Amino acid sequence: MKKLQGNAVIGQSGGPTAAINSSLAGVYKAASEAECIKTVFGMINGFEGFLAERLVDLGEYLKTDEDISLLRQTPASYLGSCRLKLPKAEDNEELYQEAFNLFKKYDIRYFFYIGGNDSMDTVMKLSSYAKKTDYEIRFIGVPKTVDNDLLETDHTPGFGSAAKYIAATVREVAQDARAYFLNSVSVIEIMGRNAGWLTASAALARLTENDGPDLIYLPECEFSFDKYIEDLKNVFKRKKNIVVAVSEGVKTSDGKYVCEAVASGKEDAFGHKYLGGTAQVLADYAGNKLCCKTRGIELNIPQRCAAHLLSKTDIDEAFENGKAAVGFALDGVTGAMIAYERMSDEPYKAGFAPKDISKIANGEKTIPKSWINKDENDVTEEFISYARPLILGEVTLKMENGLPKHLVLPREHF
Amino acid sequence: MKKLQGNAVIGQSGGPTAAINSSLAGVYKAASEAECIKTVFGMINGFEGFLAERLVDLGEYLKTDEDISLLRQTPASYLGSCRLKLPKAEDNEELYQEAFNLFKKYDIRYFFYIGGNDSMDTVMKLSSYAKKTDYEIRFIGVPKTVDNDLLETDHTPGFGSAAKYIAATVREVAQDARAYFLNSVSVIEIMGRNAGWLTASAALARLTENDGPDLIYLPECEFSFDKYIEDLKNVFKRKKNIVVAVSEGVKTSDGKYVCEAVASGKEDAFGHKYLGGTAQVLADYAGNKLCCKTRGIELNIPQRCAAHLLSKTDIDEAFENGKAAVGFALDGVTGAMIAYERMSDEPYKAGFAPKDISKIANGEKTIPKSWINKDENDVTEEFISYARPLILGEVTLKMENGLPKHLVLPREHF
Repeated sequence: MKKLQGNAVIGQSGGPTAAINSSLAGVYKAASEAECIKTVFGMINGFEGFLAERLVDLGEYLKTDEDISLLRQTPASYLGSCRLKLPKAEDNEELYQEAFNLFKKYDIRYFFYIGGNDSMDTVMKLSSYAKKTDYEIRFIGVPKTVDNDLLETDHTPGFGSAAKYIAATVREVAQDARAYFLNSVSVIEIMGRNAGWLTASAALARLTENDGPDLIYLPECEFSFDKYIEDLKNVFKRKKNIVVAVSEGVKTSDGKYVCEAVASGKEDAFGHKYLGGTAQVLADYAGNKLCCKTRGIELNIPQRCAAHLLSKTDIDEAFENGKAAVGFALDGVTGAMIAYERMSDEPYKAGFAPKDISKIANGEKTIPKSWINKDENDVTEEFISYARPLILGEVTLKMENGLPKHLVLPREHF
Repeated sequence: MKKLQGNAVIGQSGGPTAAINSSLAGVYKAASEAECIKTVFGMINGFEGFLAERLVDLGEYLKTDEDISLLRQTPASYLGSCRLKLPKAEDNEELYQEAFNLFKKYDIRYFFYIGGNDSMDTVMKLSSYAKKTDYEIRFIGVPKTVDNDLLETDHTPGFGSAAKYIAATVREVAQDARAYFLNSVSVIEIMGRNAGWLTASAALARLTENDGPDLIYLPECEFSFDKYIEDLKNVFKRKKNIVVAVSEGVKTSDGKYVCEAVASGKEDAFGHKYLGGTAQVLADYAGNKLCCKTRGIELNIPQRCAAHLLSKTDIDEAFENGKAAVGFALDGVTGAMIAYERMSDEPYKAGFAPKDISKIANGEKTIPKSWINKDENDVTEEFISYARPLILGEVTLKMENGLPKHLVLPREHF
């Protein structure tokens, strides 16, 4: 397939991660080195910003290897993000025409979009629409999400670093929980509404078999308050300080989120009013039922943007994935996402392959049931073998005044 | 003063930190190398455990340089902690006699207690009581607290690492907040009920003058909801994404904590019911008044036990402080805490000095008003000059399977 002569544009979309800028760095690096690509544009705030012609010439900002290196260790979205869901072309011909007029205006022949399943929907719709036009342009999706829930790929950039941060933090909280000589339950709430990958990665925190997290509750399984209390009682038989990892998305049998279920009236039956997030609900519930010290800890935003304990595997792979995206695009691929394909766990080895975007957009990959234990309160060794390689290796961060340095696009663009 | 021949005992007390084990390593290292000290005992769960004769011979567990090195990077309390407040000797002669009988039984001549102001109270009471006995024993307090609120010392071990973690995390959250093209307020709640040192250290996160945190609310100043909204409006004039650092301990003019004040009825005036911690209260309040996206983020337990981004200055100093404690004890000092004395900010230089424990026990040091800006929503350059040296330097962590390794005392002791 012939290489198209023209410009490229890169956008970032969806929730920030610690690796999305490493993907950006990879795409930029390869695109800026491609002879057939003249200018590499960045869209400010994703496709929404593109439609408003908020574009920057990335060459003006990413000038040196030092810039690229700093970009790779900077969390969140260097270019800004958006949550735009493109409407169908059938009902919104005008919007698509407007977009393609802009592609022509800026002579854009390569379109790279770094994001999750919603963002892949944008890539899918634009690449489908392109077939109806006579304008030659290639659309490539570059995967990104801490949630690790994209179909057709072994894992996603951003997951490894988030999992490493979560596991390290859970290990630290477990140490903290040991400090006092009394029965305690520490409940740690982890991101993932429908897919429990991040919550499951808490299992990597264990120093020995008997170490926390002692119980792991995933959104792939139905949550029962009674079972939870039974589980806690069982763990208390062998240790005093219990650490529970729970997904923000766990639901009870009536299909309601744990915090909802409790807020809707169940509190009366418990004799208490439960407020706050899932961690606090479960902490309060355990305290009430088992008369022990409890703590609810929501890992919150830092788990997706923490970049001071990066997985080298993740950050390097994200960079290479971005570069591979350009390579495939130059070779004629369009309407595809660049997936990871794992060859082996130990030693860990993975490669890249373009996958049909229509099989990925809007889909969601959850943890296989066979990787969850029978009691539905832990993961199996299969999960550990899968996840461990993804958190390996440390990035030596460039520091300034005691803190990791970040590369920031001047504020006037936002 | 003559060196006493006999044994030493070390305890840890109060809330865990990332540096308390480095202090323990320092005390152990120097004590185990002192010729006049035979055995170095560790009390399990502080003085409470000591009274129950829960002692370990630390020499059995800290055998190699590798053990010491791992102990230095392990967060929380290796020996476990307690929250025991010793009653006065006048009313509890028996308890004190029991303690001194145990000192005699184990031939303990050196007593090291690593902790905060409550723990220094224990050191004070025991050393006072010792004067009434004919048993020769020396009591030394080794400072520890993330809160940095101990009197008579420039700063405290544990503060630097917590401040570094907090500043790094606030910088990351500020990056995350920039991602979307809309007005937003991210409120980050930081530890410190009465002293705002940790909250103030969020100021170290700024990359440029215009970077977050944009507003800092300390417990040293009265909090006003109206002023808060005015402050936010002012910041919105120059940027879209506001990051607020707030101490968990901020109080309104009626002396109530922000969350209490709101829960107690003020919610009706706001037309909303505010629940949860201070961050969530302020996030919800801003969202309601200014119709913008908001997020409440409680840094919670990880800010005191995070040990994957340690301040080398802090961890090295804690170790040296522990060693110095032994040196002073051998020289005859008792009833003292080993304080830091700063000689200069740049280059940073500090030394150690024993300080009368009675001036420290139960006291509390807050941020000087002159280090808080006129608007009471930020700190001044004086604070930055004070705090920055304490977060400098990185500890190269020993890793295993992608995570920082920890040294753990076998569970049978707990």
